[in-house]
Amino acid sequence: MRAKWTDLALEAQGSAPVESERLPCGIERTVVRITTHEAQQELGRPMGTYVTLSCPQTMTIALDMRRALSCELARAIAEMLPAGAKTVLVTGLGNRSVTPDALGPRTVERVLVTRHMDGCLPDDVAKRLSSVCALAPGVLGVTGIETAEVLRGMTGHVQPDAVIAVDALAARSSGRICSTIQIADTGIAPGSGVGNHRKALTRQTLGVPVIAVGVPMVVYASTIASDAIGSLVRADGGSEDDEEKLASCVSKVVSEQLGDLIVTPREVDALVERMAGVLAQGINMALHPLLEADEIEQMMAQ
Amino acid sequence: MRAKWTDLALEAQGSAPVESERLPCGIERTVVRITTHEAQQELGRPMGTYVTLSCPQTMTIALDMRRALSCELARAIAEMLPAGAKTVLVTGLGNRSVTPDALGPRTVERVLVTRHMDGCLPDDVAKRLSSVCALAPGVLGVTGIETAEVLRGMTGHVQPDAVIAVDALAARSSGRICSTIQIADTGIAPGSGVGNHRKALTRQTLGVPVIAVGVPMVVYASTIASDAIGSLVRADGGSEDDEEKLASCVSKVVSEQLGDLIVTPREVDALVERMAGVLAQGINMALHPLLEADEIEQMMAQ
Amino acid sequence: MRAKWTDLALEAQGSAPVESERLPCGIERTVVRITTHEAQQELGRPMGTYVTLSCPQTMTIALDMRRALSCELARAIAEMLPAGAKTVLVTGLGNRSVTPDALGPRTVERVLVTRHMDGCLPDDVAKRLSSVCALAPGVLGVTGIETAEVLRGMTGHVQPDAVIAVDALAARSSGRICSTIQIADTGIAPGSGVGNHRKALTRQTLGVPVIAVGVPMVVYASTIASDAIGSLVRADGGSEDDEEKLASCVSKVVSEQLGDLIVTPREVDALVERMAGVLAQGINMALHPLLEADEIEQMMAQ
Amino acid sequence: MRAKWTDLALEAQGSAPVESERLPCGIERTVVRITTHEAQQELGRPMGTYVTLSCPQTMTIALDMRRALSCELARAIAEMLPAGAKTVLVTGLGNRSVTPDALGPRTVERVLVTRHMDGCLPDDVAKRLSSVCALAPGVLGVTGIETAEVLRGMTGHVQPDAVIAVDALAARSSGRICSTIQIADTGIAPGSGVGNHRKALTRQTLGVPVIAVGVPMVVYASTIASDAIGSLVRADGGSEDDEEKLASCVSKVVSEQLGDLIVTPREVDALVERMAGVLAQGINMALHPLLEADEIEQMMAQ
Repeated sequence: MRAKWTDLALEAQGSAPVESERLPCGIERTVVRITTHEAQQELGRPMGTYVTLSCPQTMTIALDMRRALSCELARAIAEMLPAGAKTVLVTGLGNRSVTPDALGPRTVERVLVTRHMDGCLPDDVAKRLSSVCALAPGVLGVTGIETAEVLRGMTGHVQPDAVIAVDALAARSSGRICSTIQIADTGIAPGSGVGNHRKALTRQTLGVPVIAVGVPMVVYASTIASDAIGSLVRADGGSEDDEEKLASCVSKVVSEQLGDLIVTPREVDALVERMAGVLAQGINMALHPLLEADEIEQMMAQ
Repeated sequence: MRAKWTDLALEAQGSAPVESERLPCGIERTVVRITTHEAQQELGRPMGTYVTLSCPQTMTIALDMRRALSCELARAIAEMLPAGAKTVLVTGLGNRSVTPDALGPRTVERVLVTRHMDGCLPDDVAKRLSSVCALAPGVLGVTGIETAEVLRGMTGHVQPDAVIAVDALAARSSGRICSTIQIADTGIAPGSGVGNHRKALTRQTLGVPVIAVGVPMVVYASTIASDAIGSLVRADGGSEDDEEKLASCVSKVVSEQLGDLIVTPREVDALVERMAGVLAQGINMALHPLLEADEIEQMMAQ
Repeated sequence: MRAKWTDLALEAQGSAPVESERLPCGIERTVVRITTHEAQQELGRPMGTYVTLSCPQTMTIALDMRRALSCELARAIAEMLPAGAKTVLVTGLGNRSVTPDALGPRTVERVLVTRHMDGCLPDDVAKRLSSVCALAPGVLGVTGIETAEVLRGMTGHVQPDAVIAVDALAARSSGRICSTIQIADTGIAPGSGVGNHRKALTRQTLGVPVIAVGVPMVVYASTIASDAIGSLVRADGGSEDDEEKLASCVSKVVSEQLGDLIVTPREVDALVERMAGVLAQGINMALHPLLEADEIEQMMAQ
Repeated sequence: MRAKWTDLALEAQGSAPVESERLPCGIERTVVRITTHEAQQELGRPMGTYVTLSCPQTMTIALDMRRALSCELARAIAEMLPAGAKTVLVTGLGNRSVTPDALGPRTVERVLVTRHMDGCLPDDVAKRLSSVCALAPGVLGVTGIETAEVLRGMTGHVQPDAVIAVDALAARSSGRICSTIQIADTGIAPGSGVGNHRKALTRQTLGVPVIAVGVPMVVYASTIASDAIGSLVRADGGSEDDEEKLASCVSKVVSEQLGDLIVTPREVDALVERMAGVLAQGINMALHPLLEADEIEQMMAQ
């Protein structure tokens, strides 16, 4: 049972240093740095920097806020890209046919791909473009091939300077769904994502820096069940210790039935489309800093 | 908060008579008859007959079992259709763009529609066909028009002998998701469905018998939270009374956050497609009893 | 055989007066007025005003041009709406499951629907909104009900001040595909559209003014064949008379095979999405003239 | 201008030996063998065996005929697979977002993938399964990576015994659309497919035998134009020589306008779905000859 599972470093409780600031646009920007082996163990995720952007409202994010999220995402990615990166592979993880899991594939569909245009563009445009390629490799159950296998093959061939991997996440708190973006310079390690244990996508396995961009789209039903009990115990004046004891108790009761069930907003189809737009815009801005937003939109339409 | 909400008469606790039998094919067929005003009040749903077909396994229903479900569905519908019904309007309720809610629209896409073929068919085929039309009227938020308004307009015009209304339901137990079909001769009353309060689709409002066909696709997150507490209390040896008290307590805690969240299997996209196939096949068999399954499939492909 | 079929009044040859101007934004705006019974006969379409907006480039319309098209569309619709219209029904004709035919349904999905919000909005917003509802009634082959039947039922019930009907058209010239918008105050008469003979949607049948908005998405294959011959004959120095004779000759040869075949660009899926956006934006601007573009986009996202 | 372009060896005129037989099920099975360099030059395609299955009717193929097509496809593939092949990579070429081009990706979605199940299956099932994996690599314009690059990477890694590449084709005659399947042991050479010049997928480039499975989904508009003229000339009693002269003439006239336009049936969305089902069933039967059809369908549903 995935009680209390989260893919967000911010939600993992631990002693790693956390900096938080509220930006003028209303976004809360938090940075968790895992710098020691102890913190790595404690938080259950690799050493590195985890930037989290979250906006106050959920479900229907205002247009201005979405633009601000794209800009902040672009800034966070730009800071993690290796200096002078010329070629970048963007990959959308997850299953295109499972709505909340389709965030990655839907995002890469909107990324401005330019690697194949070499030599076909006017010079004044060409010199302002990076070389970007994009791939949604599908999931193991659909292809029979590990995502990491496909990407190892591709990075070996394309030899990018960095990989950006976009994925749907699971959060601990339902308030995080579709209102939080996590950007990490750690790549993606097994056990992350919406229930898929796939092999790691990291600098170690792919040979180049891997920037992970993720947005929580679901909470596990078992987390909700566990939280209900926590709320109850606290309302009763119980302590954290009691909660742990109770959770373990419930775990036995609800495990099987709730194992694979997820909690999402009913409007998740529309939320995925909109968030894919926010992510793609941020990625396009980060990878083509010399293009105007209108130029990018125009090139996408061709 | 929709704690413990269910659209299944079978899950509503009450004193209405329930008959249950296990069919040779492995399906459990249960009939709940609400025949008194007291039972109507107690169960919170209109007088009438509610047939429930449920199969033991969840998620991946074997091919044989799906065929058996279609046959039993056809039988249940046939028993509720007015004798000598010649023209039937099948309507798929729900929002085509919200995956678990799309069951109705996806089902009507697969219904064999024949009303417009009058006079275009060879006589030997024509005399074996009923006159069937189909409409997915969309939801209020998308059209600005109440579903009941659209259907009143249509039934006034088409003058069918009966309406079959297909809808996605919410269940109390996650084990019911996509493994149970409810067929009721009561039509659909406000408050049913996945959170849509729309006006009633009943013999009273539409002027003809309305057969409701529904399949649970979700459980409310608040139900899961409430159930977790129930399990906990029972595990602790608590009584039903305690549970009620605790549930009301939790209700205060979790209400806002979980209000609109739903619990579904991750594979709900594929489950909706498959269940729409089962329902359409059952409806087609009920409405065109003189056609062979192969003939129906062939006519659908044209 | 639909040799030389066109849904555009502009392409029908005749003696009706035509005014044409090139707007500063680069759009060519043409107005054909059919004012006599003779012209009606000659052009084979009802009396009324046909505004055509066309932009020079095809396939990939620049962002600026798309915005200009939306503005000009809004202006043309506003001029045809009855003064003081408060309630408007927007209907998207065509088959959602046939890509080039899905323009209507895809457009209404993006129309800002407000009829059901009466009483739920802050006063300062409410008084700037019109009452808009939207319906994609499906096609006869899918529903078994004539589009005109469904819309008669709906207009009788909703009692709008006008209907806007969006449809995909067939053109004579492949250069018109997805680069031309026709707005007509005549409604839609049988024989229009992509090969669907459905009954008329006009002031006469629906009881309120019907504004038709259409964009050519296809050319009939038989038109292409016929044109090839025309080109050949002209290249040979032949006269129009010869062409007619030859066309009738070819008509016999190619009729059966090409009857139902259409010619489209390969990218028609993307073109439909983009043009649906242009049309919906123009319709939203025309129906809610007091809202800013950003306000409309924000309300659509909710 | 692609006047008279075809991807079908059967439609390429030449002196290669052709065997043709009508099977009891009504399918015509034709085998073209290109065995000499002269024939290769003459027909403009590589040496090898091209099997063509065609069924008399177009558009709506009866259920029995579709089953027969799957069986014959399975037989043709089985004859071309290397003896004792244990691992096969099925790849669906083409752009998932362009309807007629989506045949490949839609087919691989329905292929029974088993490579990742090694060790998870009961022995009696496992020993009857081959190891199959599947990939839809997308097209150059969407990914920025040549299809051949992606597949070279994958075959190097997966080391299959054979590749099956599924693709949409262009035909010479509109009567071939969706009623003909071509199976070739030659792989796919540049210039094939619906207008995409991608690098070759052949034994030479991928290192293993490549079986190409293709179905015509379109005819080029320029082919239709050219054919119209041919018909005309023949109707006038002209000779082949005249036709060539005229075609070259027309070529000048219509080239630009019709260059990228395709001719398809209006129902191409539904046709692609149905044909993808036929192809996937044939491939599944060829790759898992020890499984029953019902077993395959059941495993696909899991």
